[in-house]
Amino acid sequence: MSQPKPIEYADAPPEVKAVFDDIKATRQVDDVNNFWKYIAQHPPTLARTWDSLKEVMAPGALDPLVKELLYVAVSVTNNCGYCVASHTAAARRAGMTDEMFGELLAIVGMANETNRLAVGYRVPIDPAFE
Amino acid sequence: MSQPKPIEYADAPPEVKAVFDDIKATRQVDDVNNFWKYIAQHPPTLARTWDSLKEVMAPGALDPLVKELLYVAVSVTNNCGYCVASHTAAARRAGMTDEMFGELLAIVGMANETNRLAVGYRVPIDPAFE
Amino acid sequence: MSQPKPIEYADAPPEVKAVFDDIKATRQVDDVNNFWKYIAQHPPTLARTWDSLKEVMAPGALDPLVKELLYVAVSVTNNCGYCVASHTAAARRAGMTDEMFGELLAIVGMANETNRLAVGYRVPIDPAFE
Amino acid sequence: MSQPKPIEYADAPPEVKAVFDDIKATRQVDDVNNFWKYIAQHPPTLARTWDSLKEVMAPGALDPLVKELLYVAVSVTNNCGYCVASHTAAARRAGMTDEMFGELLAIVGMANETNRLAVGYRVPIDPAFE
Amino acid sequence: MSQPKPIEYADAPPEVKAVFDDIKATRQVDDVNNFWKYIAQHPPTLARTWDSLKEVMAPGALDPLVKELLYVAVSVTNNCGYCVASHTAAARRAGMTDEMFGELLAIVGMANETNRLAVGYRVPIDPAFE
Amino acid sequence: MSQPKPIEYADAPPEVKAVFDDIKATRQVDDVNNFWKYIAQHPPTLARTWDSLKEVMAPGALDPLVKELLYVAVSVTNNCGYCVASHTAAARRAGMTDEMFGELLAIVGMANETNRLAVGYRVPIDPAFE
Repeated sequence: MSQPKPIEYADAPPEVKAVFDDIKATRQVDDVNNFWKYIAQHPPTLARTWDSLKEVMAPGALDPLVKELLYVAVSVTNNCGYCVASHTAAARRAGMTDEMFGELLAIVGMANETNRLAVGYRVPIDPAFE
Repeated sequence: MSQPKPIEYADAPPEVKAVFDDIKATRQVDDVNNFWKYIAQHPPTLARTWDSLKEVMAPGALDPLVKELLYVAVSVTNNCGYCVASHTAAARRAGMTDEMFGELLAIVGMANETNRLAVGYRVPIDPAFE
Repeated sequence: MSQPKPIEYADAPPEVKAVFDDIKATRQVDDVNNFWKYIAQHPPTLARTWDSLKEVMAPGALDPLVKELLYVAVSVTNNCGYCVASHTAAARRAGMTDEMFGELLAIVGMANETNRLAVGYRVPIDPAFE
Repeated sequence: MSQPKPIEYADAPPEVKAVFDDIKATRQVDDVNNFWKYIAQHPPTLARTWDSLKEVMAPGALDPLVKELLYVAVSVTNNCGYCVASHTAAARRAGMTDEMFGELLAIVGMANETNRLAVGYRVPIDPAFE
Repeated sequence: MSQPKPIEYADAPPEVKAVFDDIKATRQVDDVNNFWKYIAQHPPTLARTWDSLKEVMAPGALDPLVKELLYVAVSVTNNCGYCVASHTAAARRAGMTDEMFGELLAIVGMANETNRLAVGYRVPIDPAFE
Repeated sequence: MSQPKPIEYADAPPEVKAVFDDIKATRQVDDVNNFWKYIAQHPPTLARTWDSLKEVMAPGALDPLVKELLYVAVSVTNNCGYCVASHTAAARRAGMTDEMFGELLAIVGMANETNRLAVGYRVPIDPAFE
């Protein structure tokens, strides 16, 4: 096997099926995304990642839409094509409008620009921020 | 001159003073941060960056707190020390609580993790996301 | 010419053929990967890169499998699609099992997560690590 | 509070003390590193991160030294100063010699170089790697 | 709408048409690249990005070819496929030869390598550079 | 030894002294930078890196100033503090003026911004660039 392959539900071992079932129930979807089918090749990674993500993305002090916007911001900065596609879709399901998406990408772009200006000019941290 | 130096208000040329004045008036602060003093070494960059940032960070479909949270998320992902310090402070001024900050960093961490799992397993984009 | 093109053996100048021959002999393969055919557009880069890589990846204090795992870890972190594909294949040829691959990606994911937590919380280096 | 602060054991709430105790027992150390004291500001992140790291870094198909080498490789690629310092120390405790460290950084450097050559020359994935 | 779509000239609102017209006139081309058609989904981002880029890329102390080479260097380091393709083409139009392209990528590769060596060896800044 | 240490000339083994001598002669300087003293801990890395850098940075189709500007652009994008400091100094020695430095950072900032816009909007490559 030279290339990762997705694990489909029908072929999955019980510990993978249990995670898939929980994803489908939690998200109220009929099937899991490719991400889960691929990382299911290593069942401990599947279980740990899902448990962590479920905890981190649950409603809290930040609401679900804000959490998805943050996920998109990181994914764009890291240039992860799969992650941009899947989390943009998730953000839209959580209520992101076209206008929000436009503002989100504008901020991500500006932050990547000013981050480099701060580095290039070797700006020391202001005492007020210490 | 081998190293960037900050431009203080008193020594600044008029076009730099004008930008500093607008930053202070817009943000209702007595002095500008080191970031602005350092990039003022190249006045066109100072003017353009401030104009852009003022437009991008103004209230819109996303509120100012969410915009600051997004800025922190990008800065942490890029490992920009100055930017993390200054935008964390800005997010707190905009209303970020300790609990929000904890959730923000938890999401940034998880997104950086799952971004790499998607890359490492070479996950193809689901047709539903195309 | 607006786009890089591969240099095939038959069309290669002598200094490129010499490098291709050494790659094939060293790795005991019939043809070189696309990586070498593309960078052969600049023969000094081809020769220098191959010389460096041959030296760095030779058995040493670290064995060849560990070296390939490290290469995959960097390539995944950098989100280099070609590099992930080619070095995952190389790691498998060097003995990487499915279980090792699963553990490798789990570590790469966690390291990318905790790297950002350290940055976001602005953790100072412990005196014991200085 | 404008800046993250470490949580010391004596001042920690019970759920943080429990994690600190487990880290100290697992690693057989007298105190936890700054990393844990800082992320303890958000107890759910502390507990989840420690649980995940303990699972991922436990001996498995890859031995502990290899796992630490991989952690250093990612941390160097991400330019995380704290992580480079702490994981280099951890790798040395796990048996990394000066020679291994030299080879490790040589590989990390070369991988970062060839990753960019592959991107710059827009090298397509060889059919054999699909 | 789950996926960004290009805005074609015929369907564009007046403020987008005005930017497209200025791009075409400035660059003396018949149509704008996909980049502009996609970011036109958020007209303020289109206008601001074009204004900024026109200012930054105009002839100055650095000539247009050098500016395009710098753009390619950043795009390769960030692993942005679209950007590598479009800015390599722009650099060729500005006069980049095959030999220049080969040297450019050689430097980008080496810089990415030595950047990591500096981080991995935790090299302190020489007093002469402060 | 938990932390890298510099190798000073007086304490260096012959193969390290030989490289230091060549650096000093080539650059006409009295002492080598910290970078070389630190990577000298692994003499094969020192020798290979110097040989490669000397070849890559030699005058060619691109002149030395342009080569140094490119090095700064990559180092800023990677957020490598040491590299930004040392290569900014090298660029100044090669003739970089304050105005050039300002334009360089403006381009690096813009490129980092538009790279993310291209990723976030998932812009497909124009047929003309293939």
